Amino acid sequence: MSLDGGKQNEDAVAFMPVVSSSARVTGPRRVELVSEKVVYRTNLQKPAKVGLLMVGWGGNNGSTLTAALVANRNRVSWRTRTGRHGMNLADALDRAQVLEPELRDQVRSELSSMVPMRAPFYADFVAGNQAERADNVLPGGDGDKAGHLAQLRGDLRAFRAAHPGMDKVFVVWTANTERLARVDEPGVHDSADALLRAIQTSHPQVSCSTLFGVAAALEGAVYINGSPQNTFVPGLVDLATRCGTHVAGDDFKSGQTKLKSVLVDFLVGAGLRPVAIASYNHLGNNDGRNLSEAAQFRAKELSKTNVVDDMVASNPVLYPPTNNNNNKSHQLMHMMGPDHLVVIKYVPAVGDSKRAMDEYETEIFMGGRSTIAVHNVCEDSLLAAPLILDLVLLAELLTRVKTAGKDETFRSMNTVLSLLSYMLKAPLVPEGRPVVNALFKQRAAIENLFRALVGLPPVDPLCIEQRLA
Amino acid sequence: MSLDGGKQNEDAVAFMPVVSSSARVTGPRRVELVSEKVVYRTNLQKPAKVGLLMVGWGGNNGSTLTAALVANRNRVSWRTRTGRHGMNLADALDRAQVLEPELRDQVRSELSSMVPMRAPFYADFVAGNQAERADNVLPGGDGDKAGHLAQLRGDLRAFRAAHPGMDKVFVVWTANTERLARVDEPGVHDSADALLRAIQTSHPQVSCSTLFGVAAALEGAVYINGSPQNTFVPGLVDLATRCGTHVAGDDFKSGQTKLKSVLVDFLVGAGLRPVAIASYNHLGNNDGRNLSEAAQFRAKELSKTNVVDDMVASNPVLYPPTNNNNNKSHQLMHMMGPDHLVVIKYVPAVGDSKRAMDEYETEIFMGGRSTIAVHNVCEDSLLAAPLILDLVLLAELLTRVKTAGKDETFRSMNTVLSLLSYMLKAPLVPEGRPVVNALFKQRAAIENLFRALVGLPPVDPLCIEQRLA
Amino acid sequence: MSLDGGKQNEDAVAFMPVVSSSARVTGPRRVELVSEKVVYRTNLQKPAKVGLLMVGWGGNNGSTLTAALVANRNRVSWRTRTGRHGMNLADALDRAQVLEPELRDQVRSELSSMVPMRAPFYADFVAGNQAERADNVLPGGDGDKAGHLAQLRGDLRAFRAAHPGMDKVFVVWTANTERLARVDEPGVHDSADALLRAIQTSHPQVSCSTLFGVAAALEGAVYINGSPQNTFVPGLVDLATRCGTHVAGDDFKSGQTKLKSVLVDFLVGAGLRPVAIASYNHLGNNDGRNLSEAAQFRAKELSKTNVVDDMVASNPVLYPPTNNNNNKSHQLMHMMGPDHLVVIKYVPAVGDSKRAMDEYETEIFMGGRSTIAVHNVCEDSLLAAPLILDLVLLAELLTRVKTAGKDETFRSMNTVLSLLSYMLKAPLVPEGRPVVNALFKQRAAIENLFRALVGLPPVDPLCIEQRLA
Amino acid sequence: MSLDGGKQNEDAVAFMPVVSSSARVTGPRRVELVSEKVVYRTNLQKPAKVGLLMVGWGGNNGSTLTAALVANRNRVSWRTRTGRHGMNLADALDRAQVLEPELRDQVRSELSSMVPMRAPFYADFVAGNQAERADNVLPGGDGDKAGHLAQLRGDLRAFRAAHPGMDKVFVVWTANTERLARVDEPGVHDSADALLRAIQTSHPQVSCSTLFGVAAALEGAVYINGSPQNTFVPGLVDLATRCGTHVAGDDFKSGQTKLKSVLVDFLVGAGLRPVAIASYNHLGNNDGRNLSEAAQFRAKELSKTNVVDDMVASNPVLYPPTNNNNNKSHQLMHMMGPDHLVVIKYVPAVGDSKRAMDEYETEIFMGGRSTIAVHNVCEDSLLAAPLILDLVLLAELLTRVKTAGKDETFRSMNTVLSLLSYMLKAPLVPEGRPVVNALFKQRAAIENLFRALVGLPPVDPLCIEQRLA
Repeated sequence: MSLDGGKQNEDAVAFMPVVSSSARVTGPRRVELVSEKVVYRTNLQKPAKVGLLMVGWGGNNGSTLTAALVANRNRVSWRTRTGRHGMNLADALDRAQVLEPELRDQVRSELSSMVPMRAPFYADFVAGNQAERADNVLPGGDGDKAGHLAQLRGDLRAFRAAHPGMDKVFVVWTANTERLARVDEPGVHDSADALLRAIQTSHPQVSCSTLFGVAAALEGAVYINGSPQNTFVPGLVDLATRCGTHVAGDDFKSGQTKLKSVLVDFLVGAGLRPVAIASYNHLGNNDGRNLSEAAQFRAKELSKTNVVDDMVASNPVLYPPTNNNNNKSHQLMHMMGPDHLVVIKYVPAVGDSKRAMDEYETEIFMGGRSTIAVHNVCEDSLLAAPLILDLVLLAELLTRVKTAGKDETFRSMNTVLSLLSYMLKAPLVPEGRPVVNALFKQRAAIENLFRALVGLPPVDPLCIEQRLA
Repeated sequence: MSLDGGKQNEDAVAFMPVVSSSARVTGPRRVELVSEKVVYRTNLQKPAKVGLLMVGWGGNNGSTLTAALVANRNRVSWRTRTGRHGMNLADALDRAQVLEPELRDQVRSELSSMVPMRAPFYADFVAGNQAERADNVLPGGDGDKAGHLAQLRGDLRAFRAAHPGMDKVFVVWTANTERLARVDEPGVHDSADALLRAIQTSHPQVSCSTLFGVAAALEGAVYINGSPQNTFVPGLVDLATRCGTHVAGDDFKSGQTKLKSVLVDFLVGAGLRPVAIASYNHLGNNDGRNLSEAAQFRAKELSKTNVVDDMVASNPVLYPPTNNNNNKSHQLMHMMGPDHLVVIKYVPAVGDSKRAMDEYETEIFMGGRSTIAVHNVCEDSLLAAPLILDLVLLAELLTRVKTAGKDETFRSMNTVLSLLSYMLKAPLVPEGRPVVNALFKQRAAIENLFRALVGLPPVDPLCIEQRLA
Repeated sequence: MSLDGGKQNEDAVAFMPVVSSSARVTGPRRVELVSEKVVYRTNLQKPAKVGLLMVGWGGNNGSTLTAALVANRNRVSWRTRTGRHGMNLADALDRAQVLEPELRDQVRSELSSMVPMRAPFYADFVAGNQAERADNVLPGGDGDKAGHLAQLRGDLRAFRAAHPGMDKVFVVWTANTERLARVDEPGVHDSADALLRAIQTSHPQVSCSTLFGVAAALEGAVYINGSPQNTFVPGLVDLATRCGTHVAGDDFKSGQTKLKSVLVDFLVGAGLRPVAIASYNHLGNNDGRNLSEAAQFRAKELSKTNVVDDMVASNPVLYPPTNNNNNKSHQLMHMMGPDHLVVIKYVPAVGDSKRAMDEYETEIFMGGRSTIAVHNVCEDSLLAAPLILDLVLLAELLTRVKTAGKDETFRSMNTVLSLLSYMLKAPLVPEGRPVVNALFKQRAAIENLFRALVGLPPVDPLCIEQRLA
Repeated sequence: MSLDGGKQNEDAVAFMPVVSSSARVTGPRRVELVSEKVVYRTNLQKPAKVGLLMVGWGGNNGSTLTAALVANRNRVSWRTRTGRHGMNLADALDRAQVLEPELRDQVRSELSSMVPMRAPFYADFVAGNQAERADNVLPGGDGDKAGHLAQLRGDLRAFRAAHPGMDKVFVVWTANTERLARVDEPGVHDSADALLRAIQTSHPQVSCSTLFGVAAALEGAVYINGSPQNTFVPGLVDLATRCGTHVAGDDFKSGQTKLKSVLVDFLVGAGLRPVAIASYNHLGNNDGRNLSEAAQFRAKELSKTNVVDDMVASNPVLYPPTNNNNNKSHQLMHMMGPDHLVVIKYVPAVGDSKRAMDEYETEIFMGGRSTIAVHNVCEDSLLAAPLILDLVLLAELLTRVKTAGKDETFRSMNTVLSLLSYMLKAPLVPEGRPVVNALFKQRAAIENLFRALVGLPPVDPLCIEQRLA
């Protein structure tokens, strides 16, 4: 589908200078302040149309978002391609059981004409229980990855051709969680060239989601991964950089994890020490079903458990670092961070209504304990679907922003758009850059960017002038 | 008791320049950036001793904090005065049932020699069930407020005299919640002079907590109110300003409200619209018992329900403002903010172990609903007691900070220390200044002050240099 | 409406002899076994039609049940009377927001023709916020109770006349909770004659619900009270006895209380001692709105808090009785039973979706504690509506049962049908008979009656023959 | 240790006749009532001393119970044997961290002299993480099962010899959950003789818990299994029958499962249909640690998930049976019973404080849903330890009870004491007899037995005489 950019077609470019200050540690107790005037240049020409291709369009997230956009057609319009097999979007919406029947009725006729394109299906990467549902697949199994890449690139070009004025295309993986690809074999995932070669030989460790990423990069589309698997192998990021496009990931951050990154940030920031975090989920949609197999769950578990690492590390008073990394006994682990477990289970009877039950056990003053138990009920797809919109809109803006420092050379955003991590559970960041999970910091980064684009300094809640006599 | 400031007795004063930038709205779509170099001057001479007088010392918070300080004596030392009546601190600690018996044993002998001073007791302001417990009171009931004021001032002077080198004294109200004082009568609470006159006539609407504040101001002590009643009538703030001292309040923010200000900030910030917040508490300590009467509960309820107001107001997309303020029908109220209720109940069997049960009902995408239920168990006093330390330490620092703008005139902090609101449920702010309840903003304000004091700019999670190609 | 009894029109009467054994305490440590053959006689002629008149038909419970019956019309048929004012049932169903829109659509046309009869409205007995909704009332306010009684009796007779073959009529109060009637004035509520006289003088303490009960008794209808107020003053029970009809009450037992009577029964039975029970509710339907005023809530609170009394009394090891009833200090109360509180709040945003949050604090082995927190979400009316059916069906059966002991005289069921207490929160029992709240006992009583009616002995899970070698 | 029976040494035997009635299905719609006079004979001579040997004495349950008994010495006395290796009970109690330090201090000196006997340790049956803790084991690994049996029998005989007057000995397995023994090989577990032969050859599928059972049977001791593994292979029950002793199992029923068997019984009994039950647990004691391995967890999971089977089967209206047992698709499973999952996780930071989080999703009237979420915190051992006492006391009584029917032949209780299932999660029953999990039925069976022993009929809550006019 294509998102219509509306009436504003300004040709202008806005330049905004902002004084950017940061601190540089220059000695044991010495910190030097570094100030630099940074100029932000924003291309104000918004695209007439933005194309959005969702991998897994017929899933709950895809069908929900599409129906919502149709329902809000005053703001948004889109077109669809036709395919031969497969469930149309109206039927997918009924299967999802997310939206109210009356709403579904009102968008049914329009959605009935939308049929997803065929996609590769590599059974080795998804749960065995998914095979029966995968009825709209390209032929060749996992033995013709080069052919699939050619087909996907052709589909992308045809999509553009069918929509004149569609300047930018965003591909979002909203499909199933895959198992983690094994990336330990040299010469497969470690560079763009290696990856392209591996596709030619249909290497078994090239996942379907990575293949979509390769197609997107080669066709100049931004690629966003809404599932937790390791789609972004080094070779894919390398390729996107070479092609001058962008990527973002991983895993839509919609519910339990979002709340957790807020609560732990709050607790640790207040000097209260979480000693145990137990997170249980169950859901009955196809996401839950796919995750009921161990390999797929493992990918998800990793993306959900790393979320407190940076907050723990931020407070060495509460969590003193330990010297002995070899000794992984429970006592030492206990000192290094909270016990943290994540469980996801498939319970058909609750459908798309996801249940999250969390317990936070916290050590407080004088060895006391505080126990916080949270029970959260929500339609999973109603939290995830709007994130897709937010991701695309923010990513699109970022493609139009450049900054220059004192060397007066304008640089684009990094290939990896880490600013999108507010909506993503396991933030992908440029290599060597720090991962930030704390949600309020992620949000403040976006807010401060918006301010910088119009020449305003970062938010400073100190407001010293409000505090003085 | 007095907190020993330790060995550092630097005489120096540190000056730190910081560029402070803010935005000024100059037209419908025009904002002008205002930059000013601000110099922060910190008096590095920390007091040799800091005196802390807790009103309600024998309550759970006071006895818990005292025992903790004794137990941590390596860092802290203190002296006590002797009084004739009243339960000693060791017995108070046993009654509180907060700390472990073994810990209590180890501090018992020291605490046994600490006996609270006598205090005024104005029965009209506290619950009827408190009379039996109030066995250490000054004579005169509520008919001799002038005499009480003189006695309290004498006690403060004696306290200072008994501890040479104690430069600063902090008085913290940790006692019972009083009913709200009625402040509608002109000429009673509206100026320092009026208030002092009202004390002379033992005006019935001058509360005990206000009287302590008057004594503190007149003796140059900082006064902090850890309960929710309206202690800080305009006349008391006026008096503190005239005396050049400081105040902060109201109501220690320890548990449920703190969590709420985080969760609602998160939800509203993420574009999710809370439509109902139901907060239930029960506890069995004397705080709960006192709050079981309606007038006292009303004061508490007010301090707990205003906590989401600024967050609701911050997002006019979620909560569109309404024109018709006269029409308070439920439909309109619904549009103006979430339904919000707070219940506190006295349940002796749970003792100091406070139970909070909250439900957040949130409207999400396409009219969907998300329900978050939270059950929180915690020893109330173990959350509140360390706040007293934090409040005193931060307030003490603030008394040593001055800033100057381009006019090069150094100004002290406002009489009302709004920066302490991170620890306080219903932040008292200088008149006309905005109230901020969002916890992360409150914390960032403190963090940015600390940075400014050493010449660093505010935290900016954007870190644009980490995001570039 | 009338419930069609179906095809079975047997004329027979079934006699079933059962040996009933019970124990009689005859000395300090002596118990004598009393065995008696009891003959149960059941009139097998089921009524061709059963009439059901719901007071508060247009409320959530009434409209939900009616729509459900329409939707299940294969089993049930009914007719309606027409009135001039008032919301029809289809509109009431929409207002209730309980059932799915599609279901509502399918029963709309039928329900549109059903309009409730007018009823008296005594504003003094319900919350002030109910006046705007009460738009279908008989004239005369509370000054013409005799006229209202005549009108109600006339309505009942007309109802019967309009439905030939309708042998039995059941009147169920599903309307608002009233405040408790004050019954301390002699000569008003204490006998049937006094009550009838009080109606003639429009005595202010004769409630609307009692007036309906009087009309029902005089017209030979069974009367069931689904709200918690003290409808069944002695004079009303007296009158029903005199008229040879039956009554049952009070207050539909649908959710939180039902669960509580199960959990406390389990805990106390297992030797675990509940020391505190905190029950919080909020809901946004009209029931919640009416209960938001103190007098109406008081009636509800009483019906909900007595529910554990018999279980506490059943285990004197856990809850030793105390001699000194005058001393109501907290320590003693603590010994006499658990701290128990019930809170109900009106939260419009959650509508008919009732939220119950309970905490059970239990003392276990060696002074340990167990904390059980329960969060329960349910459409209130979907739990209550089917209870109305169960109550009527069971009550109807009971009107056809008689038993005889060795004197061979057959006796009917008592005027007060205490067997219906499985569906009622505050069981009304014949004077001097014990109140049983334990839910499993209430259910076993019904099950054992059904068994006795076919000549089977009570359920005995011992099944000794299954335990032997 | 030995439990002292106290002063009552009656020699008498009590005979009590009770009329036992049951129903026999004799045709499609015909049921015949069968009445029989049953005589209960109770040997009133209580044992002077009862010996209790706990396997896993040094674990949390064993040490907690022992300390409690010491603390209640007025009622109970005991002796201990001395061993050479191993942690003494006082140290075990400290490790358990269940009881208050002061209580531990007061029993320390006495417990310090109690040292567990050595036991076999078959590493293949327990989690790998248990090896370091198993420091008090018999030599031979799992290669000398015959030698171990001889040693255990010798220990039992020595225990009896050391305590003159100790008539009865009870052996209770309170040790770790073992993995399930594989019992599919013929000629190993299927008869007493086969089992004894398998021990002679140290067959790898003879578990340690079964070996203890064999020793107990051969020495005439009652054996109770407090863990979930399949200790009671057919050959062991056969052997106990041959030796004239008794067994009971499996798995102490202390918390979450107990509550579940109550809630599901209540819901199904009330016509509400549970469609999903999700049960999550985490705990940090050694039980949790051992269960963190898959094989041990599997045994536990089975004992916890079968608990609703009989209740589901009891209501074919809610759960209609399905014909096609081969088709195990999710749709069909859904029709056959609720989705039911059980998760147990090891979280060291919470220690012995077990956390259970359950969600019950129930379908109610007209397709509505009710969601009940439960959060339960409890010291695991404080719930389990008193069960050991109850089990032994009830089992001891049952060894003194005989009943006779019309053939006047007295029969003992079956080898398998199914009446103990009130305290056991996965009730072991005599072969071919029905399993009852409903907790109130289990309790009523015990209550009715006690009544029968004194000649009273079963409890009948109908109390028809209370219901009549």
